[in-house]
Amino acid sequence: MFVSGTGLPLATPFDESGDVDEAALRSLVEAVEAAGVDFVVPCGSNGEAVHLDVAERTRVTEVVADAATLPVVAGTGHPSERVTVEQTRAAADVGADAALVVSPFYHQHDAGAIATHYERVADASPIPVYLYSVPKYTGTTLPPRTVQSLATHENVHGIKDSSGDLETLQRYVTLTSGADFDVLVGSGSVYAAGLDAGASGGVLALANVVPDLASEVYDLHANGDDDAARALNRDLVELNRAVTAEYGVPGLKAAMRSRDYAAGYPRRPFQPVSDDVRAELVALVDEALADASVE
Amino acid sequence: MFVSGTGLPLATPFDESGDVDEAALRSLVEAVEAAGVDFVVPCGSNGEAVHLDVAERTRVTEVVADAATLPVVAGTGHPSERVTVEQTRAAADVGADAALVVSPFYHQHDAGAIATHYERVADASPIPVYLYSVPKYTGTTLPPRTVQSLATHENVHGIKDSSGDLETLQRYVTLTSGADFDVLVGSGSVYAAGLDAGASGGVLALANVVPDLASEVYDLHANGDDDAARALNRDLVELNRAVTAEYGVPGLKAAMRSRDYAAGYPRRPFQPVSDDVRAELVALVDEALADASVE
Amino acid sequence: MFVSGTGLPLATPFDESGDVDEAALRSLVEAVEAAGVDFVVPCGSNGEAVHLDVAERTRVTEVVADAATLPVVAGTGHPSERVTVEQTRAAADVGADAALVVSPFYHQHDAGAIATHYERVADASPIPVYLYSVPKYTGTTLPPRTVQSLATHENVHGIKDSSGDLETLQRYVTLTSGADFDVLVGSGSVYAAGLDAGASGGVLALANVVPDLASEVYDLHANGDDDAARALNRDLVELNRAVTAEYGVPGLKAAMRSRDYAAGYPRRPFQPVSDDVRAELVALVDEALADASVE
Amino acid sequence: MFVSGTGLPLATPFDESGDVDEAALRSLVEAVEAAGVDFVVPCGSNGEAVHLDVAERTRVTEVVADAATLPVVAGTGHPSERVTVEQTRAAADVGADAALVVSPFYHQHDAGAIATHYERVADASPIPVYLYSVPKYTGTTLPPRTVQSLATHENVHGIKDSSGDLETLQRYVTLTSGADFDVLVGSGSVYAAGLDAGASGGVLALANVVPDLASEVYDLHANGDDDAARALNRDLVELNRAVTAEYGVPGLKAAMRSRDYAAGYPRRPFQPVSDDVRAELVALVDEALADASVE
Repeated sequence: MFVSGTGLPLATPFDESGDVDEAALRSLVEAVEAAGVDFVVPCGSNGEAVHLDVAERTRVTEVVADAATLPVVAGTGHPSERVTVEQTRAAADVGADAALVVSPFYHQHDAGAIATHYERVADASPIPVYLYSVPKYTGTTLPPRTVQSLATHENVHGIKDSSGDLETLQRYVTLTSGADFDVLVGSGSVYAAGLDAGASGGVLALANVVPDLASEVYDLHANGDDDAARALNRDLVELNRAVTAEYGVPGLKAAMRSRDYAAGYPRRPFQPVSDDVRAELVALVDEALADASVE
Repeated sequence: MFVSGTGLPLATPFDESGDVDEAALRSLVEAVEAAGVDFVVPCGSNGEAVHLDVAERTRVTEVVADAATLPVVAGTGHPSERVTVEQTRAAADVGADAALVVSPFYHQHDAGAIATHYERVADASPIPVYLYSVPKYTGTTLPPRTVQSLATHENVHGIKDSSGDLETLQRYVTLTSGADFDVLVGSGSVYAAGLDAGASGGVLALANVVPDLASEVYDLHANGDDDAARALNRDLVELNRAVTAEYGVPGLKAAMRSRDYAAGYPRRPFQPVSDDVRAELVALVDEALADASVE
Repeated sequence: MFVSGTGLPLATPFDESGDVDEAALRSLVEAVEAAGVDFVVPCGSNGEAVHLDVAERTRVTEVVADAATLPVVAGTGHPSERVTVEQTRAAADVGADAALVVSPFYHQHDAGAIATHYERVADASPIPVYLYSVPKYTGTTLPPRTVQSLATHENVHGIKDSSGDLETLQRYVTLTSGADFDVLVGSGSVYAAGLDAGASGGVLALANVVPDLASEVYDLHANGDDDAARALNRDLVELNRAVTAEYGVPGLKAAMRSRDYAAGYPRRPFQPVSDDVRAELVALVDEALADASVE
Repeated sequence: MFVSGTGLPLATPFDESGDVDEAALRSLVEAVEAAGVDFVVPCGSNGEAVHLDVAERTRVTEVVADAATLPVVAGTGHPSERVTVEQTRAAADVGADAALVVSPFYHQHDAGAIATHYERVADASPIPVYLYSVPKYTGTTLPPRTVQSLATHENVHGIKDSSGDLETLQRYVTLTSGADFDVLVGSGSVYAAGLDAGASGGVLALANVVPDLASEVYDLHANGDDDAARALNRDLVELNRAVTAEYGVPGLKAAMRSRDYAAGYPRRPFQPVSDDVRAELVALVDEALADASVE
């Protein structure tokens, strides 16, 4: 096991002019570390990686690696192998401990081409590689049999599964059980269930808003109290939906601000949420915190 | 009308090591110009724009602009406004005459955010902007009412519609009929039908393989011989499907090579087609040429 | 060619209590015949066939066959072969001239099972069979190669294609060109384009509202005036969308009533449209009629 | 709680000529009762309800109600309210204890129309009604907020959720927690996880093949041994996929036969699986049984 526990796919704070706000980013890293997460993930989907150019992504990773004391798993995937390798090497150079590589998007590829893609990236990467399956953004679910095969590559250490589909996650766990391979839950609504199914941890957008509670789900489970982990997770479902499927990154950042995290602005074409949505998000955050404190 | 006729979304030739083969690219531009197309489009979907980094895209545009005598409409869209604007300005600097801006992808955005995105890009662009709706890659169909509204922007000159859906294309034409706005057909199987519906021209992957015949469809239509245009187009449908929906960019490049165009290799994760597919493509090219010569 | 021209997939008028209103149905048949359509199609998708039981469907077909002087092509498809055959034989018994058989729905089947299904239904049917591809309801597009093969069956006479996808329709036409096989356009927005592509006619929900204009599209095309056919069709696109994709059968019936056709009520779970939608539909009907009169 | 535990959505055995094999059906009911399930569900999706006409469905329900000592929850949903009510009353007349009503399919309806549909069916039904959400067949996921509202109807007793999506199931559980409302898991791969999330039981196609093991998952959970329930369920995932998503009803029936259950033939257009698939299914059954015996 290379990483485990609760990973935080850091939102990237932009200032009003759309520049990366490095001071805010550092402050965010410090705040979430203090809240108890186990590793940080700059430049994931919720970090708006696709809104950054190659140099910006490397710089964001550098700032995070510099500010963090925890392991850093940097998002480095692009549609092409070449840029992915370049981005991965750059991430390693600036201090990332591992790379999270989203499956190629825009063009579709068959399972064979995807497997070859990951093998070549893993061969070229100086740091361990994590697969990343996020069908809502890429249109592709990494096939469990392909993941099973890639799990035997010595530089492929795990997968983040953001499908939200527990059957698929269970298959990833079962089919890779003979390898040293981490399955990480990518969907905040099924974190506890994924841990029950054998996942090693999670990388959850939701953790940007409630890093403390997301970590507590993991800790409760790790301490053998599955029931309490699930009960706590249940209280986070409506909030999780609001900051992902419902309102996306702008919703996530608005919810973060309600907890005084340095979320900054989203980058355009994202637009800040309306006042009504902001109020709804604040209410959901409050409700989740209240429910959780009762558990 | 800013551009009209048959545009060619140039495949980007890579050499065996995956570098852009500039000599091949120049030779390709010359060859397709000689075949009679009306404008060229570097860095579109079939040019594997998403497989290039920002600097490579600009360089490809520069090489094409330098080699071409025809108008150059360069693909400059990225998921973020910022990189799109940067790429668009760079394209203008190196000689592009207009920009083709794919709708934001990876993250989904509502119609209002998409409209604002295009307005801001068009405001910032030194060259005319064409919208680009390609739902199979982006998951988004540009809503006809949004396009109607954007058509009134003085720097938005048209749209490439690759939905393949004639109803949508017809609505684009009708709803923008009061503006100076070009609707360009993006799907080779419905080129003649799209022209019949009022499109000003097309930008067709298929034209990489048969630039002569694609241009002839337009010319026949322009000369009032709709029936002959449709008959010729009909002979290209199976070939068009094979080099787009069926085998994608690798299929397109294999078919191009069968006609001695300097297609080069696709960039990974694309892999060259198998020998069987290559043979199938050669047969489809031969059949299309034979059928067309009879019309 | 067995049927050609403009077919009308009759809405089924229900009374307020939800019973079939046979008097209204007869009156509707007479009215649309007077408006100039070429054949009638009871128990299609817009006839709410799935809202009728087997006996009701047969009775609706009987009433229509009795009232009509034109050919009657009755919808007889069910998810199973057995009920489809039973319904088809009953339709023949009560006077239907041909059967329109929707591809099996609810469960999905591969191309081989679909081909066998149609072969067995056609073998058992005393009347000619038309295939029916309507992916928005069934989730299945009949594969062109399967249709090509079925076209050689002596009792399979054609296909209604409601995909709206002109490439698919063109392939149906081309691949069955050697057989005596009718391709009928099932989408009102692309009627003229489908005829241009070689279709023999259409079966259009829109014709319930404007049977006169739908027929005129066909007649103009048949008389060689393709341009006028397309121009007229173009004026019907917004109305067509409103009575199909936008507001469905309740919208269709509201629009019909605005022209004094005996549409009756939809069957629940359909609910009548709101007053706002009704007003929008009336405006679209008026606009279409006004535009058409100018052409 | 009206029903709980493991429900079995009985396959409907047909003989070679396609008739319902009533003797086989009785024998199947007896066999699965002996294997320990808690209630039986004739005429569900895997019972090929859509392949039966109204009278056949009633007769199948009657045979099952006559043969069964356990509660009978009969599938009675059709696309229209009228036929659904008729089928539901008939089911009650022949001895069904409750009705499982699939959401209206073929035509799509908005949440308001769906809610009204269920309210009217529940008002008219002499027996308790269960909602049924099965998006892979209907294209519709019952919205959690709609389910929350329907849960307050005194004759709506629960829902079968076959989405396979644990977040949705969790929301159904949470949002209806104030009502006397059963949430039943409809996907065999997530049975244990669904019970962990608060479901009252399940209705699982898989139980046709391994009624003993499916019941054991429930019993282990009910006895507080969540870990063992999940471990056993995990051993059933590959088999579950094979008899549902992968090979459908024909695969289910082949797997049943390998355990000497009276599965009979599927009704056409379903075709029996090939010998290769049959061998694969036998192997998966053997593997599941072997793994389960080790747990």
